[in-house]
Amino acid sequence: MADEVILLDFWPSLFGMRAKIALREKGVDFDPRVEDPWNKSPLLLETNPVHKKIPVLVHNGKPVCESLIIVQYIDETWGPESPLLPSDPHERARARFWADYVDKMIPVVRAVCASAGEAQEVVTKEYIEGLNVLQGELGNKAYFGGDRFGYVDVSLIPLYSWFFALETSSGFSHEEECPKLVGWAKRCMQRESVAKSLPDPQKVYDFMLELKKKIQAQ
Amino acid sequence: MADEVILLDFWPSLFGMRAKIALREKGVDFDPRVEDPWNKSPLLLETNPVHKKIPVLVHNGKPVCESLIIVQYIDETWGPESPLLPSDPHERARARFWADYVDKMIPVVRAVCASAGEAQEVVTKEYIEGLNVLQGELGNKAYFGGDRFGYVDVSLIPLYSWFFALETSSGFSHEEECPKLVGWAKRCMQRESVAKSLPDPQKVYDFMLELKKKIQAQ
Repeated sequence: MADEVILLDFWPSLFGMRAKIALREKGVDFDPRVEDPWNKSPLLLETNPVHKKIPVLVHNGKPVCESLIIVQYIDETWGPESPLLPSDPHERARARFWADYVDKMIPVVRAVCASAGEAQEVVTKEYIEGLNVLQGELGNKAYFGGDRFGYVDVSLIPLYSWFFALETSSGFSHEEECPKLVGWAKRCMQRESVAKSLPDPQKVYDFMLELKKKIQAQ
Repeated sequence: MADEVILLDFWPSLFGMRAKIALREKGVDFDPRVEDPWNKSPLLLETNPVHKKIPVLVHNGKPVCESLIIVQYIDETWGPESPLLPSDPHERARARFWADYVDKMIPVVRAVCASAGEAQEVVTKEYIEGLNVLQGELGNKAYFGGDRFGYVDVSLIPLYSWFFALETSSGFSHEEECPKLVGWAKRCMQRESVAKSLPDPQKVYDFMLELKKKIQAQ
């Protein structure tokens, strides 16, 4: 019997994109179910009763939650010939460190989108500093792990679809601030797994504006 | 040549305790170096230049940072006959989910220690809710993973050394609020790896009072 793989997702979610990229890297057919964050499905509430958040990967009825845990699960379950995490324990730990670093930047990304004026200047500075730390780790490598697209790339590349929204709302240029990182992002976008999983930047920007209105109306 | 294993640590740190328990579970000899958080050593700044935080495990000169990443590194590097993480990918994902849940509770733990009055009541309620979610996951099992002490146990048990400090500062009883979890903690404490790695609760409480004074003076 073929595997049943369902992904509970919401299209602008950086976390959902990670799961989609990993599944596509491994060539896993899956059934994407778009959730409405303001009207969660019974399946989402049942499969992630603790956090009630997407993404949730439901594999043959068994749920896996939290995006980086999902990516590791996908890596351990499918396609051992094309691993996302390196096999050496120290290199694995290093990849996990940088993926965790990306996770720790997400609240700053949210703050850049949600703030304005001086407060936005402060968080934008922090955000750009974070990108520069990542750019330093990338160095002159093609991907974070070296020559192969891997775990850290999967964890960070979704943010590229938000670059336009971030720039437009806060008035800076990723290309000017971290050109090597933009080069890396363009390289990642040449992969079908990534190109198919990242939404249109204009659509993300429109979503961000709509979200701001919703939050202000509350 | 024998491995050189150094652990940069600070005794009341929940994160440092995780690393010590995992090393002791695996029977790894290590050189514990107590750091002063207010006067960090050159070795700490060199091995964790991004976060500049303990714990750092330095194995034959190579650093590993972030406690849960360190525990996974230890599990992948030593003692495959006594694994901390389960071998089944779905069970591994589940263990990672709950360890991550514990990590997400730490800011609430800090808030209980640092706050007072009504604000403290609010965060204490949130803390106790979190413990009850964990108690629900534990159920009637001996350990979080079943019969064997493992990854989730390592991630959570350090908090037991802070129970007295939390109770004394916020006026509630863990025994009353989550008796099964206290039973689990006492079971874990029977293990040498845990008993040797957790500091005296009275000493933790005194440290917390000292820390509050330092923060207020700033």
